[in-house]
Amino acid sequence: MNNKLPSKTSFKITPLGGLQQIGSNMILVESSSTNVIIDCGILFPTEGHLGINYLIPDLNYISDINIDALIITHGHEDHIGAITHFIDRFPNVPIYTSDFTALLIRKKINELKISKKLNIYKEEHTLSFGNIRVHPVSVNHSIPETFGLFFQDINTNESFFYCSDFKIDESSIYESPFNFEKLVSLRNKASRFYLLPDSTNIISSNLETPSETSLIDSFSDIFSSDYSRIFITTFSSNIWRIKSIIHAATLNNLKIVSYGRSFKSYIAIAVENGLITPDELKSFATEQSIGDINKKHIVLLSGCQADFRSALRRVGGGEDKTYKPNSNDVFVFSSKAIPGNEKNISLLMNKISESGAKIITSSDMPIHVSGHPGRDDLLNLYDKVSPDYIFPIHGESFFLQRHCDFAASHGYKSDWLTNYSSLLLGDGYKIQYLDEDFLHDSIHGKRKVINRDQLRERRKIAERGLIIVSEFKKGFEITTQGIPEVGTFEGENFNTVDELSKSFSRIHEKIFEIVKVELRREVVKLFGYKPEVIFHTYKKASKQEA
Amino acid sequence: MNNKLPSKTSFKITPLGGLQQIGSNMILVESSSTNVIIDCGILFPTEGHLGINYLIPDLNYISDINIDALIITHGHEDHIGAITHFIDRFPNVPIYTSDFTALLIRKKINELKISKKLNIYKEEHTLSFGNIRVHPVSVNHSIPETFGLFFQDINTNESFFYCSDFKIDESSIYESPFNFEKLVSLRNKASRFYLLPDSTNIISSNLETPSETSLIDSFSDIFSSDYSRIFITTFSSNIWRIKSIIHAATLNNLKIVSYGRSFKSYIAIAVENGLITPDELKSFATEQSIGDINKKHIVLLSGCQADFRSALRRVGGGEDKTYKPNSNDVFVFSSKAIPGNEKNISLLMNKISESGAKIITSSDMPIHVSGHPGRDDLLNLYDKVSPDYIFPIHGESFFLQRHCDFAASHGYKSDWLTNYSSLLLGDGYKIQYLDEDFLHDSIHGKRKVINRDQLRERRKIAERGLIIVSEFKKGFEITTQGIPEVGTFEGENFNTVDELSKSFSRIHEKIFEIVKVELRREVVKLFGYKPEVIFHTYKKASKQEA
Repeated sequence: MNNKLPSKTSFKITPLGGLQQIGSNMILVESSSTNVIIDCGILFPTEGHLGINYLIPDLNYISDINIDALIITHGHEDHIGAITHFIDRFPNVPIYTSDFTALLIRKKINELKISKKLNIYKEEHTLSFGNIRVHPVSVNHSIPETFGLFFQDINTNESFFYCSDFKIDESSIYESPFNFEKLVSLRNKASRFYLLPDSTNIISSNLETPSETSLIDSFSDIFSSDYSRIFITTFSSNIWRIKSIIHAATLNNLKIVSYGRSFKSYIAIAVENGLITPDELKSFATEQSIGDINKKHIVLLSGCQADFRSALRRVGGGEDKTYKPNSNDVFVFSSKAIPGNEKNISLLMNKISESGAKIITSSDMPIHVSGHPGRDDLLNLYDKVSPDYIFPIHGESFFLQRHCDFAASHGYKSDWLTNYSSLLLGDGYKIQYLDEDFLHDSIHGKRKVINRDQLRERRKIAERGLIIVSEFKKGFEITTQGIPEVGTFEGENFNTVDELSKSFSRIHEKIFEIVKVELRREVVKLFGYKPEVIFHTYKKASKQEA
Repeated sequence: MNNKLPSKTSFKITPLGGLQQIGSNMILVESSSTNVIIDCGILFPTEGHLGINYLIPDLNYISDINIDALIITHGHEDHIGAITHFIDRFPNVPIYTSDFTALLIRKKINELKISKKLNIYKEEHTLSFGNIRVHPVSVNHSIPETFGLFFQDINTNESFFYCSDFKIDESSIYESPFNFEKLVSLRNKASRFYLLPDSTNIISSNLETPSETSLIDSFSDIFSSDYSRIFITTFSSNIWRIKSIIHAATLNNLKIVSYGRSFKSYIAIAVENGLITPDELKSFATEQSIGDINKKHIVLLSGCQADFRSALRRVGGGEDKTYKPNSNDVFVFSSKAIPGNEKNISLLMNKISESGAKIITSSDMPIHVSGHPGRDDLLNLYDKVSPDYIFPIHGESFFLQRHCDFAASHGYKSDWLTNYSSLLLGDGYKIQYLDEDFLHDSIHGKRKVINRDQLRERRKIAERGLIIVSEFKKGFEITTQGIPEVGTFEGENFNTVDELSKSFSRIHEKIFEIVKVELRREVVKLFGYKPEVIFHTYKKASKQEA
């Protein structure tokens, strides 16, 4: 597909993820001279995904394209989580990333014992690829060192700004504000300028996202209340949030135990990078060094989405050996539910309530702020850079549609696309839709792809149960999985699976196909639904399935 | 357990459902002379429940109790959905219900060809059981004919008011307002009075639930806009909502097609009961009689929770033969997500957006009101009846805890309980917790119970896949379900399941236990997780599982 762009096309932009559903951000930018990938993230599975670890964009889409670089905007998993899969597939493509993000990527690479050089960029750098220049622009976000990427075609002077995750935090005490000066100066040089902004909060009622710094007072209020233990959860990658908690803990002379692998890992990297200072580190204790485990202290619990096996789920559910919540404790949810996790979080909250402990959520007090822009923040960005066209990204289809409606309501021209469709920029724009079907890969276990047929097999058994029949010379042996057994069929023709088995022995003389038909009929009669049925027979080598 | 209440106990109240999670409302009320059950509902499954149809309270809890009556407050599924299971188990217990609800129950009974008399009560009636009097009090709600139940012990004159689902709708044009006059007059006769109120909206930011009637203007605004088809979804049992839609449709001279089984069924019952008038019926057309299917009209779609196989999911997902949404259409969500359904609903909204059709939700316009009280409504109720104690019901544990906090903040004494714990009322109160474990039954297919072990089997296979091995004299036969097959193991010791199979043949001489150990080890090596493994062997009759 490379180097065959229609004439007058400065850029061809193809999202491989990040649209339709929030997650798995990855965008291919093609130009006449150069092909660059921005980000390489995972999509988190929901309960319906049946045990898989995560989903990644279909890398087959780019298998025939000569990729010049992978540029990473920031270190959230939905932007870097698929990077080892990318390296497996394209070991020679150079990767560009900031310092802090490099440490996060390095950790993934080391765990898999892959060798890979990472190229560090800073805001003052310009990355050059053929006729393309890429200028990183500092933005604010809920993880350190987040950049928007300003792409410039030096032949046409057309430009676009990829700004998938950002907020505008003028009063952060942790990071410099969104670098509008650089952005506006770059924009002013462009003959035509396109904006690709974040849509995460487009339907939020919060029009302006508050500063990360604004939370310290609430934390301090909670820490100075007469709770015994203060269990607090948030997104572990939010180093600013952790620093605010440290700040409020210091003010209240309280120690913090970081509990759970994820917090420990991000804190270690923040310490390595100097984002958490040796002085701040003094606030931490361990569950061993704290002394009386029931005395007042702060416990940072990983797993704010009530993630399976997380510290939050274990402690909140009363299953932890060290921390057993009681009515003197409080759980502080300095986070919000990612869509799909609401039910699991509320089930966990019920368990916490049943322990007697209190719960504080962001509906009660300002203890969480988003990392994404509200509508007024977006308008602020639009007005600063006057885009010729706006193409919303980082959002589900409904969000993208709403984002376009919002842009239009303020007089801006906009349009939206889906994953694996292409946006042709040059003297205006055109959207190309793909006939072929590309779908994300589901990953389970050792970074193995589970295909859709295999997931369909899992789903069928999960929703209907399974009967396994082996035909031996002396008769049939039957095993059931996930369906009622002995004693639950009272009043039916067959009372037990054993009887079912005898019935098959009676018809053993009939040919195999008839057995299958009989089994199906009897099973539907018994259950009202048809479990999956698998047959093995001694007569043949190849397997038969019903 | 019957008739052995501690002395001075007027009532022993044991919820068999309705607490901890919202749904499956069922409460046992025991007194010295009488045992009454209130409601008999189902709990809706979430995606994590793996194919089951619904959950019901554990009826074993009441198997030794002589039940005098089952009294139904209203016709929502979480209050009547388990009634046929109750009739199966306790065929002789008389059931008391209002007219409209009786029609809904009758439909369930007829479908199963069970014969059962239903006793109709009206608000002016008093139900007498031993020393207990039960007075139905009309309340407002999102389904016709909803009652709170005022229980009176004529010996002690202690009383409680069970008010699990209600709202206060003073300006409804459809139903009479909450009968506070009757309630207050009954309360004033009580020596001691306990209140058991609805907790559904305790954490909602909506303090006062608006009137059902308030929506007509919004509907009319939407219907008069220049959309082509107006697809509108809501809870099918909300006859008031349907009447508001009819009202607005008539104002705009538009026809309504009711599409989907659930709407058709509730509308038929409302017509039978006179709640929808012959005049209102004239607004309806069928998809056949409407003529041009693309002309402007209203389509009522069942399945507002994006329920599997519902009309909303089918039409919104572009899978319906008759209605294909396009950019001239609008989808109106006159509903809100029940916790756990958020993700499915947003996935469907994405598909709708991708079709080009617009979406209107209750965040955009007042097109949905709750059927439950906001905090100010609750306070209004408290203040009218001055309860000695408040015991919140109809809510998850977190909600109950919050409801108690709210009551306390207004000077009311309160406490909360869990399912299968008992509240002893009499000269104050006491809560008894049960040592034994009672858990809801999961129902799948023909009203069959799936036990927890069977669900665990389903979950294991769903999350890890399955390998089935049959050992025949000539070797092993292997079938896999839900795990990677040929071609996905590149670079591993075994490239295909066939090779795996050959490996087992090589160790065929070893004893069976060694085969099992080998298989496990190889499989963990291959996948990084352990699928379920089932063995059948020709050597023995009984099955063996690993």
